[in-house]
Amino acid sequence: MRAAIMRDSKIVVDDISAPTPGPGEVLVKTLACGICGSDLHTLAHGHQMVEMSRETDGLFDMDLSRDVVMGHEFCGEILDYGPDTTGKLAVGTKVCAMPILMRGGKLATVGYSNDAPGGYGQQMVLLESMLLPVTNGLATDLAALTEPMAVGYHTVEMARLQSDEVPLVIGCGPVGLAVITALKLKGVGPIIAADFSPARRKLAEQVGADVVVDPGVNSPYDTWNDMALVDKVGDSSNPFDTGPKTRQGVYFECVGVPGVIEQMIVGAPRGCRIVVVGLCMEEDQFMPYRAISKEINLQFVLGYGGDEFASVLHNIAEGKVNVEPLITGKVGLDGVAGAFKDLGDPERHAKILVEPWR
Amino acid sequence: MRAAIMRDSKIVVDDISAPTPGPGEVLVKTLACGICGSDLHTLAHGHQMVEMSRETDGLFDMDLSRDVVMGHEFCGEILDYGPDTTGKLAVGTKVCAMPILMRGGKLATVGYSNDAPGGYGQQMVLLESMLLPVTNGLATDLAALTEPMAVGYHTVEMARLQSDEVPLVIGCGPVGLAVITALKLKGVGPIIAADFSPARRKLAEQVGADVVVDPGVNSPYDTWNDMALVDKVGDSSNPFDTGPKTRQGVYFECVGVPGVIEQMIVGAPRGCRIVVVGLCMEEDQFMPYRAISKEINLQFVLGYGGDEFASVLHNIAEGKVNVEPLITGKVGLDGVAGAFKDLGDPERHAKILVEPWR
Repeated sequence: MRAAIMRDSKIVVDDISAPTPGPGEVLVKTLACGICGSDLHTLAHGHQMVEMSRETDGLFDMDLSRDVVMGHEFCGEILDYGPDTTGKLAVGTKVCAMPILMRGGKLATVGYSNDAPGGYGQQMVLLESMLLPVTNGLATDLAALTEPMAVGYHTVEMARLQSDEVPLVIGCGPVGLAVITALKLKGVGPIIAADFSPARRKLAEQVGADVVVDPGVNSPYDTWNDMALVDKVGDSSNPFDTGPKTRQGVYFECVGVPGVIEQMIVGAPRGCRIVVVGLCMEEDQFMPYRAISKEINLQFVLGYGGDEFASVLHNIAEGKVNVEPLITGKVGLDGVAGAFKDLGDPERHAKILVEPWR
Repeated sequence: MRAAIMRDSKIVVDDISAPTPGPGEVLVKTLACGICGSDLHTLAHGHQMVEMSRETDGLFDMDLSRDVVMGHEFCGEILDYGPDTTGKLAVGTKVCAMPILMRGGKLATVGYSNDAPGGYGQQMVLLESMLLPVTNGLATDLAALTEPMAVGYHTVEMARLQSDEVPLVIGCGPVGLAVITALKLKGVGPIIAADFSPARRKLAEQVGADVVVDPGVNSPYDTWNDMALVDKVGDSSNPFDTGPKTRQGVYFECVGVPGVIEQMIVGAPRGCRIVVVGLCMEEDQFMPYRAISKEINLQFVLGYGGDEFASVLHNIAEGKVNVEPLITGKVGLDGVAGAFKDLGDPERHAKILVEPWR
């Protein structure tokens, strides 16, 4: 099959063997696959990812001296069933799936494994137990957004939001946009979102942000304080109630570079919960007392559960979330290397889909 | 009055003017006052404390070129009432209180303010609204432990513990011992506690630890894993259930030096909540991905509320907690400077009480 392959820290297009489905596995034709920021990071800093992953969860455990076909945000079509499968869904059924295989008692991530090629190849092998049929005539492109949207959905679930809490989203790349989409679905607000890029602020509004902030012009934290203000004066009958009152803050870190967590702690109101979904693979610094003095809560999150993944596909298929604006480009395999470069410019792109069959 | 004063980064005993109670305030004779680790830190690194505090909560806002009388863990006796007070408690009543004054619309911490001398002086001024009478014939020494025990109580409240969760306490200085005491009261367990000092491990057992670990010999995290193990094999019918299962982990950081939080993240089980009460005033480093990969929750905590403070005094008075072992020494004002030095040795001391009337 043809595939856009990560080889020697470059993306090259070549013919490689198609994967063969093992027990419990299904062969799938890739219809569309989104390019994820983690793929860009892996191409640029693969060894760091692999090292950190081997020490922790093993999700990015690859031999980078061998070929890797990345791509874990996909929609495909069933081609064939391997042994020990039920064949419940007909060949030709359009499906999404969590990008996970189970081999030799170990998890392997589809798209981050030498032996489990991802959606930048024409064919993939998936676990039958993970397959979800794409229903309601949902377009392939939108179905392919299930995986990145599931990250935002899980993040908001982990935030344990109450209806009177006011969210602030720092960073409106695909992860931040997925968080905003999930916040909108949850019905909390006002949703305040910050990004330096005008294009991304516009996308943030399209998917549900009520107020967008350019941090180059205004402090997102000052804006949050204005929007969340309940009582400017406080309770004058209580000597300890000396300052303005705000609603409870829940901040979302969707940037993933060193220094942002500390900046958010400094900007946060007392008792704020900061949910960290930005995937920072580097060492970071902070002053614990700054967090202690405000009794900050830091919730780190990763991925999603199977139920969450299924809910998100359902929500997209039912038109409950407006995800179409996120798709800013589509390429064939020959366009993948260029797309990786183009995604560096937030003005041009949010999500580019790869169509390996072109 | 006589007082042990912080002057030019030294503790000296001298005569100074007794404080005068302002509106809503009460003059109190200090009966006993514990020496807190934060006092040791303030003597050694006062400028750092003041700078960090001015940027954050203002709790340690002092002019270090002027005299400061520290001491915020006290039991006293009412001497006189200032203006605008109710005088509800008779002169001579033994009291505890949160170490907080309210002056000019601003909070001032008793013992960390130039104008609100603490319990290392013979007299203090306290807010009448903060006074709690010491009941049930409770001994002065035990009543003086209310403040440090309230820190542990609040910490455990903030941990939102469920009955099936297994706590691990890292560090068995006075803060760690207060946390263990509160965990014991809560009825959760087994309580696992780690400290390099044999004397502190013994104290940990006396106040309620079920298992103590010398980190120089065994990993506290391995011990926690052994104690919290539910199922060695996992569920063989579920392909994703590939490893041993443990009960939910709730770790308590009671050390407060850089590097400990990261070490605990590395040692923690997936989904662990780490409650940080150790007061680290220095910059710290960590690898966000280590926390992300396990979906760690970091809850930073400080101080206590008025209801918690009152509950703790009540619990001590009712004999519900065993706090007596913590008191390892008593000194007069002339012994304060020496006690600050002696507290550096964990084998010799946990809590030293100052009796300024001696």
